[in-house]
Amino acid sequence: MPSAAVVSAPSYVFPFRSSTSSISPTAISLTKRTWKPRIQTISFGKCVVRATVSIEKETPEAERPETFLRGVDEAQSSSSVRARFEKMIREAQDSVCSALEAADGGAQFKEDVWSRPGGGGGISRVLQDGAVWEKAGVNVSVVYGVMPPDAYRAAKGAPTDQKPGPVPFFAAGISSVLHPKNPFAPTLHFNYRYFETDAPKDAPGAPRQWWFGGGTDLTPAYIFEEDVKHFHSVQKRACDKFEPTFYPRFKKWCDDYFYIKHRGERRGLGGIFFDDLNDYDQEMLLSFATECANSVIPAYLPIIEKRKDLPFTEHQKAWQQLRRGRYVEFNLVYDRGTTFGLKTGGRIESILVSLPLTARWEYDHKPEEGSEEWKLLDACINPKEWI
Amino acid sequence: MPSAAVVSAPSYVFPFRSSTSSISPTAISLTKRTWKPRIQTISFGKCVVRATVSIEKETPEAERPETFLRGVDEAQSSSSVRARFEKMIREAQDSVCSALEAADGGAQFKEDVWSRPGGGGGISRVLQDGAVWEKAGVNVSVVYGVMPPDAYRAAKGAPTDQKPGPVPFFAAGISSVLHPKNPFAPTLHFNYRYFETDAPKDAPGAPRQWWFGGGTDLTPAYIFEEDVKHFHSVQKRACDKFEPTFYPRFKKWCDDYFYIKHRGERRGLGGIFFDDLNDYDQEMLLSFATECANSVIPAYLPIIEKRKDLPFTEHQKAWQQLRRGRYVEFNLVYDRGTTFGLKTGGRIESILVSLPLTARWEYDHKPEEGSEEWKLLDACINPKEWI
Repeated sequence: MPSAAVVSAPSYVFPFRSSTSSISPTAISLTKRTWKPRIQTISFGKCVVRATVSIEKETPEAERPETFLRGVDEAQSSSSVRARFEKMIREAQDSVCSALEAADGGAQFKEDVWSRPGGGGGISRVLQDGAVWEKAGVNVSVVYGVMPPDAYRAAKGAPTDQKPGPVPFFAAGISSVLHPKNPFAPTLHFNYRYFETDAPKDAPGAPRQWWFGGGTDLTPAYIFEEDVKHFHSVQKRACDKFEPTFYPRFKKWCDDYFYIKHRGERRGLGGIFFDDLNDYDQEMLLSFATECANSVIPAYLPIIEKRKDLPFTEHQKAWQQLRRGRYVEFNLVYDRGTTFGLKTGGRIESILVSLPLTARWEYDHKPEEGSEEWKLLDACINPKEWI
Repeated sequence: MPSAAVVSAPSYVFPFRSSTSSISPTAISLTKRTWKPRIQTISFGKCVVRATVSIEKETPEAERPETFLRGVDEAQSSSSVRARFEKMIREAQDSVCSALEAADGGAQFKEDVWSRPGGGGGISRVLQDGAVWEKAGVNVSVVYGVMPPDAYRAAKGAPTDQKPGPVPFFAAGISSVLHPKNPFAPTLHFNYRYFETDAPKDAPGAPRQWWFGGGTDLTPAYIFEEDVKHFHSVQKRACDKFEPTFYPRFKKWCDDYFYIKHRGERRGLGGIFFDDLNDYDQEMLLSFATECANSVIPAYLPIIEKRKDLPFTEHQKAWQQLRRGRYVEFNLVYDRGTTFGLKTGGRIESILVSLPLTARWEYDHKPEEGSEEWKLLDACINPKEWI
């Protein structure tokens, strides 16, 4: 698990949205569901708090707005980090989706745009049942929210008799999972996010905080060493442009984070992962996140091009499906974004777009020693240095 | 969620086992896994405690022993509730497995027997890729464990300055999930368990506790009203033999427990569910649990016989697979037995045998209003009175 840093708080709240926006009249007539604030036990980094979580409902939008920033933010300056981060993730979403559509050669992304009354919103894009990808989601969102004061207090080490009010926060991010059909073509996940807290409302002098988080990781069902080396090399190159310690540190962080504890294995072959990053120059970290997002396509598409049309057997497809089962286990049991989203009543279809189209669980399945399946499992149990 | 009763404690710890017993030399050579006691946050009913959980390793056994009870228990009396409950669940396992094998007409259950050095053990049986069932697991187990004192203290309302030691407990149960292939043939789950605590070791005068838990519930992908009525009627008949309030109470408890919160829907069409049941005569509850276990086959097999060979379309198979996805979501995110087992390092293959062989997730899938799929979903969102 990523270690909790200065304000190790909900950097994982934003890729999701609570919405009835895409519930059609059909679905509404089906249900007697009511949405209420709920008391939840939520982990914010090191701190477990009970908090009332209520997420404002969203409105579907016919068109993408110029920005999801609140008027006051927008007016302040287009050169603010908030504004530049939003611009970056929206450009990344456009370029990634275009590249994926071109590589798929047939299917197109379906887009849902939404906004919240008080500011913020997002764009979800999903491509399903394409020629290359069976399910691919690329979402951006901008969220204005309120973080439980306990989390802020624990992080700041404030005296316990002081009761600051809820801490307003801003979060923006891009989040994506791409599941190809061919068992030799790997799944890719990436996610880059920026987070700011204001001072608590009744402690206006208290310091504001900001941090970056994110990562890109590869989940193949079969190892092609040249593919994994290429993928990690691109990650390393992006890291090395900024700080020589980044790649080794974030590579290990990735191996530690995507760990399926109950299996004693990682879900895939890693990449980079970081969270709560604020101990470098803010401009430098913005450039770093941008570089990482821009590295997704060069890291991933050359692998897809080589593997998407390889012939495969039923046995190989079944193994891919078993590994997809592990992906489901990680996302539903451990992934902080998913579990937080499910608990807080986030928009389910956006949260669970990360799940594969299909998955499989066999009782007590063990690959034959020395087989290609065994090699993949071994690398998931004992993470390797690929470069 | 079931309400927490007197000692609303780990009635859900027993169906699982922590084991390397079935890890072959191949798998061992694969791994550098080590098993350590781990600090975990665990909910025991109303009480959330941090406890060191360490589960004794198991040994595979070549033969089923006469009993899994510890010598001292066994010597005490074969008429003890512990002994009679173990006998009951083992007989139920035999009769259910025989009936399923006969109905399947081809596949046979694979059996794993195991024991623990200090007493306790279990028998896991799995039938995979049969003619009728794609995956069917029927497990019994007997566990001697230790429950964190905080859970006992919270339940008993003991003074907080008193620090009793860990509370020894005994638990025995049968647990089963049956997933058929045909989309018109429903999934069945049942689970019956008996639980006892001793007094804490350093407070020998404190009262001992016992309770029963369990239930049987049906998860079809399509509604045949006569099937659901038949299933619920058999449950009601079993309940009515003992107490007229049981069926309405346990039917509602079942609807409340198997609730996928983030979807606002139940995983299926319910049945009965109860937990922490100790406010009736102990002999009466033992008879009741026995009656319920004996009702599984008459409640379920007539439905399977009628539906197992019905012709179906690809569309209907895909809908079954989407419902299987919901089953996975419930079990990995909410089911107390599964989540407890995963956290405490239980034997994964036994815990996750409840997952279907295959499952599916489509983005934003909504059945057409008025369709058969829509009717099932509606009944999962708005639970009905079937009889």
